[in-house]
Amino acid sequence: MNASIIAIGTEMLGPTRVDTNSLKVTGVLESYGVPLVRKSIAADSLADLIDEIEFAIARCDVLITSGGLGPTEDDLTREALAQAFGLELQVDQSIIDAIEERFRRRGGKMPEVNKRQANVFVGQTTLYNERGTAPGFHLEIRGKHVWVFPGVPHELEWMLETFFRPWLADVSGGVARHRRVLKVAGLTESGVEERLKPYYEAHRDEPFTILASPGGIELHLVDDSLETIAAREQEMLSLLGHYVFGYDNDTLEAVVGRMLAERHETVATAESCTGGLLAQRITDVAGSSAYFIGGAVCYDARVKVDVAGVDPELIRAHGEVSEQVAVALARGIRERFGATYGVGITGIAGPGGGSEAKPVGTVHIAVAGAAAHEHRKVFWGGTTRYIVRALSAQTALDMLRRVMTQ
Amino acid sequence: MNASIIAIGTEMLGPTRVDTNSLKVTGVLESYGVPLVRKSIAADSLADLIDEIEFAIARCDVLITSGGLGPTEDDLTREALAQAFGLELQVDQSIIDAIEERFRRRGGKMPEVNKRQANVFVGQTTLYNERGTAPGFHLEIRGKHVWVFPGVPHELEWMLETFFRPWLADVSGGVARHRRVLKVAGLTESGVEERLKPYYEAHRDEPFTILASPGGIELHLVDDSLETIAAREQEMLSLLGHYVFGYDNDTLEAVVGRMLAERHETVATAESCTGGLLAQRITDVAGSSAYFIGGAVCYDARVKVDVAGVDPELIRAHGEVSEQVAVALARGIRERFGATYGVGITGIAGPGGGSEAKPVGTVHIAVAGAAAHEHRKVFWGGTTRYIVRALSAQTALDMLRRVMTQ
Repeated sequence: MNASIIAIGTEMLGPTRVDTNSLKVTGVLESYGVPLVRKSIAADSLADLIDEIEFAIARCDVLITSGGLGPTEDDLTREALAQAFGLELQVDQSIIDAIEERFRRRGGKMPEVNKRQANVFVGQTTLYNERGTAPGFHLEIRGKHVWVFPGVPHELEWMLETFFRPWLADVSGGVARHRRVLKVAGLTESGVEERLKPYYEAHRDEPFTILASPGGIELHLVDDSLETIAAREQEMLSLLGHYVFGYDNDTLEAVVGRMLAERHETVATAESCTGGLLAQRITDVAGSSAYFIGGAVCYDARVKVDVAGVDPELIRAHGEVSEQVAVALARGIRERFGATYGVGITGIAGPGGGSEAKPVGTVHIAVAGAAAHEHRKVFWGGTTRYIVRALSAQTALDMLRRVMTQ
Repeated sequence: MNASIIAIGTEMLGPTRVDTNSLKVTGVLESYGVPLVRKSIAADSLADLIDEIEFAIARCDVLITSGGLGPTEDDLTREALAQAFGLELQVDQSIIDAIEERFRRRGGKMPEVNKRQANVFVGQTTLYNERGTAPGFHLEIRGKHVWVFPGVPHELEWMLETFFRPWLADVSGGVARHRRVLKVAGLTESGVEERLKPYYEAHRDEPFTILASPGGIELHLVDDSLETIAAREQEMLSLLGHYVFGYDNDTLEAVVGRMLAERHETVATAESCTGGLLAQRITDVAGSSAYFIGGAVCYDARVKVDVAGVDPELIRAHGEVSEQVAVALARGIRERFGATYGVGITGIAGPGGGSEAKPVGTVHIAVAGAAAHEHRKVFWGGTTRYIVRALSAQTALDMLRRVMTQ
């Protein structure tokens, strides 16, 4: 069994709105092991909508639509479904009564247009909508199922839980499907691919997704069997080792925070080019005051000297963007704030400020502990200020994690 | 002329990711008056992808695809297009050379898999990708146009501006439809609605959108005529006044930065509950080193005393979350860093740390200048840590803006 979704409404074809209802539908589908094969967003146009419905139903067992059930002339979902499947529509007086009652309770009167919402499909199932005026539908068409929901998110959510989930649990025999996400830091997407080659070769036909973002790389394993997922996870761990920093909803800042809290250790930061992004990510975690002492955003050289205690001679000799200054920032802030670890970042986020010797994208990152320090020089050329800053903060967090696991 | 979009990638068919690339594409289309008739999200499956491409191209003049151009076996866009349109693929050695060079500059070696990205369509146009390894394509198929872009947002954006926008400007004969966005700070969405009542009554049937996010409220005006837009904008400005801080792509941090730069003034920050978010937003702006001296993230009381120079007696008497400490942070950091303005933020972002007297969501914000200071106590109860922090940073920036316009 598989599914597809059509979100209906011209407003989702402009530059400002995305369809998020489909995420709710997909969440319910996934927990019963029903894959989504495609989804689309269709305009409020009768001919296009019929076309879209016919294309979708030919390629799935369960079609879910959202939107287009309102009272206006733009709301064409009922008419399109009737024409696509040769169904007859008729007025259901009990729905008119319910809508009238709803308006009365709120001290209003039902506008005449709302009567459109009382059109139901002859011989099919109409779904009551506790949260709004538009009823939904469950149509059975030549052995396939079409579920028709309103587009208002909290109405759709209520109907999903009330009608769709129980039906899906029933027809799927309650089979649950599981998802496990492995989170990776310190490797590029191709670096991950390279290491996972033996895995790919061993499991060619199994579904498996890699997602890359500046926040790291995610590996998604989906299967009916928890045992299979656990076995695949072990294979991946043996290939990726310590590059895997967490699972499922873990973020790198939360993992690092948990490690610091467990070890009763603390951290302080001295950032230049990331401008507070590292501190912001660390303190994004609830309870971070237990291990984050504070940070300095050392944009001006004066602040590097005055707050982080960098020797002005070092800056004169090596420049603000240098290994020496990154290490001095990490050591200086650690000592000044009395933290277990100090992190220093200095670099050129761009677009200005680069030179031949130190082009835009050059960043020095250091993590200092009581006895030793780690330093890394990285280069993210040809990207954007946003990416240089995001990858720098990510690398700094990952270096801190690695220092703690050494 | 009309358009449709296919976003390619199984990861966008799960419950966690939406396609946002299409919003960028739609923005460009809209500015040249090209309507989007449909969009869809397709899985990484060769047969499904071919099917989807054939369905889409039959219903539009310009088809735009994003994603599926990576180096892995899941990346099937090239093969699907070749099969759907009967095109031949061949290896372009110059692309392999460019990818190798890109890896070399970063001190790495090109993984073997990346060679897949050097497959190009015989007789069609290959688009250089300055920001990544995957080239894009412009295919001309029986009088229709297919534009093929990578799925990585900042790569896609660069290619849209570099290749797609100029082409569209050319074939459409110039800009057709205009969008003007007014950006508002310091009011809630219902506060904006309330003030705009006379506007709504005067222009009942005109399309007009309000979008609300923690970054502020946007009012979108869309029309064919620049004169109409300018007239509507004036009406809105007369109702909203100084609550409008900017236009179109302006961010509050960019507007504040521009004002500081023009006045040859500087700012320094001392943040507690926002944990560096304010400094991060200020330094998100390219060139911010001209007016941002630096910041302190004063999570621990020690740092408030040691770096921002807050009198420990004030903390003992009023608590860390108080008007007195917010003002002392703003004044202290201003003096310490020798800035024109100091900003202090102290509050309870939650979920822990609240009390009856100071519940979660209580935040004190202060902006200090040479002669005077402003203070505001705000309360965002019943929201999340993320929202409390985002609204606090937004309010601090807006207070700084208002101090400069007084």
